[in-house]
Amino acid sequence: MTTNCAWKLIARPEGPFKPQDFQWVQEPVPDPADGQVLVRQIYLSLDPTSRGWANSAPTYLPPVPLGSVMRGFGLGVVEQSRDARFARGDYVQGLLGWQTYAVVDGPVLSRMDRDPAIPLHAYLAVLGHIGATAYFGLFDIGKLKAGETLTVSGAAGAVGSLVGQIGKITGCRVVGTAGSDEKCRWLTEELGFDAAINYKKEPVLSRMRRLCPSGIDVHFENVGGDVLDAALAFINTRARIVLCGLISQYNEFVPPPGPRFLGNVLVRRARLEGFVVVDYQDRFEEAFGPLKTWMAEGRLKYRADIVDGLEQAPAAVNRLFTGENTGKLLLRLADDPGGRP
Amino acid sequence: MTTNCAWKLIARPEGPFKPQDFQWVQEPVPDPADGQVLVRQIYLSLDPTSRGWANSAPTYLPPVPLGSVMRGFGLGVVEQSRDARFARGDYVQGLLGWQTYAVVDGPVLSRMDRDPAIPLHAYLAVLGHIGATAYFGLFDIGKLKAGETLTVSGAAGAVGSLVGQIGKITGCRVVGTAGSDEKCRWLTEELGFDAAINYKKEPVLSRMRRLCPSGIDVHFENVGGDVLDAALAFINTRARIVLCGLISQYNEFVPPPGPRFLGNVLVRRARLEGFVVVDYQDRFEEAFGPLKTWMAEGRLKYRADIVDGLEQAPAAVNRLFTGENTGKLLLRLADDPGGRP
Repeated sequence: MTTNCAWKLIARPEGPFKPQDFQWVQEPVPDPADGQVLVRQIYLSLDPTSRGWANSAPTYLPPVPLGSVMRGFGLGVVEQSRDARFARGDYVQGLLGWQTYAVVDGPVLSRMDRDPAIPLHAYLAVLGHIGATAYFGLFDIGKLKAGETLTVSGAAGAVGSLVGQIGKITGCRVVGTAGSDEKCRWLTEELGFDAAINYKKEPVLSRMRRLCPSGIDVHFENVGGDVLDAALAFINTRARIVLCGLISQYNEFVPPPGPRFLGNVLVRRARLEGFVVVDYQDRFEEAFGPLKTWMAEGRLKYRADIVDGLEQAPAAVNRLFTGENTGKLLLRLADDPGGRP
Repeated sequence: MTTNCAWKLIARPEGPFKPQDFQWVQEPVPDPADGQVLVRQIYLSLDPTSRGWANSAPTYLPPVPLGSVMRGFGLGVVEQSRDARFARGDYVQGLLGWQTYAVVDGPVLSRMDRDPAIPLHAYLAVLGHIGATAYFGLFDIGKLKAGETLTVSGAAGAVGSLVGQIGKITGCRVVGTAGSDEKCRWLTEELGFDAAINYKKEPVLSRMRRLCPSGIDVHFENVGGDVLDAALAFINTRARIVLCGLISQYNEFVPPPGPRFLGNVLVRRARLEGFVVVDYQDRFEEAFGPLKTWMAEGRLKYRADIVDGLEQAPAAVNRLFTGENTGKLLLRLADDPGGRP
């Protein structure tokens, strides 16, 4: 009989996730009921939004109940299916949780048409919720157009690094912020950003002014705090601010004060809009077409930051908040039966 | 020869407007050049936005140049016209400035079709930029619909008091905030608001929660600060926040920190949008139709707070910021030649 290993959430974290907020359990894998699918998880995505899911207050999803498996988005292969739409061997994505095997209702899953030229982890780093976030955030919420100036915070993160590159592909001036010189070099030298600001070392407000001489048309926010404020200081008339993440405050019990330059949103008739990619689930394929093309053309690069072993989840997830992580943070839980990484 | 009395802006105010920021001048009224119109101003509107116009930084209009007549919106009667579209005796509105006579280019003016049943000051208090602000802010930016919950700050102000009443006419639950018990009573007892919060005395966050049991769908912001934050705390999914004014910070050199509950804009996929009524100049008539009907039906009330004499302008304008003012603050500069108030 197969054993499932899982991390259950047993306490509401105060501040960052702590090991004692989780419990490691090993239980027999149950048989899927009618309409259910048993998935062996290969890659588990660790995302900043998971910190909000662990709180007692609902976000865009209900809180993870204490005592249940921690929520997480992942990718795996079907081992057994009692839903006619899935067959053994299919690659699927969905909210599989922090566990090695997931028994889930069929509708929770989406099947991947796996392209053998694309490594499996790219389906989480680009061709999944991350790529869809960048794509719909920029175009559906941000209405980005060629010739505009785009700024993005958390630019060396999974979403931010795609956002900036898609901005360049669209024909925009792109300025990103990140927390180390090494990350900034990656953005400008490898990913083609016009400029990058190390927000931990440089005066963000004056650098932003100098690097965006025509003002800012679209700001893609992943972080919150000073960078958002600096962007608001230089927005143009009818600017769009895509509020995708506020990672700098996810560990705070009382959120810090917001941006001082809200008055500019008024006088510039700007729009600040919150955005959650789960709302676009039905339209993901719209994004995957261009994303695949850009990847194949070598114009869209990504970095997968892969940690081995589900045991590492509670420690690894905090790398998202400390600045240790660059690109998409993934846990590898199993080998790919297709034999690819 | 006729003499024009005017207040010129001669210093950039630090904090509130001060008498020494202005200079009183009396000069002969010039003859209008070809294409120009000479207007005798009857009512001058004093609006919070004027504080921003006096700063050295541009807002949605360029700064008022030092040494020129202070900018202001007003209503008057044409005395002499060298623009074929206007004739002596026409009632007009436009940026006439803090002066008794204005010589302006014709296109700056809009002619009023004066209804004898409507007092002249109502054309500034409702059937002008104020009514248009409430109307387009609620419907064009706020997308207000019947059955929703609407909150409005500065609810006893010129715009806020119309916003709340239009919300009731639309079939919404309406909760306003104001700075005195007397203002709050006016809102609930005279204007039909469902509830009002005295933000100076009551705990805004807990009162807002109690008074908006179904959450907030549209928040109309005129003030900024704690009330905006409290509204963001209880916004529903897809809420619209109409950013119309931030009067609490217009006198500050460095704007105060913004709202803490920005995270709710994200998880609720809300939209916060800046809004300036001058963008709607071409569509004002769309608003005036329903506004006139509601006034005639007695469903839309207003209060005009009328101060006599242009000399009073520098002192009177600060009433907007101290909380002394209720409803539309106007200066009466001349008698209505039509013989009505």
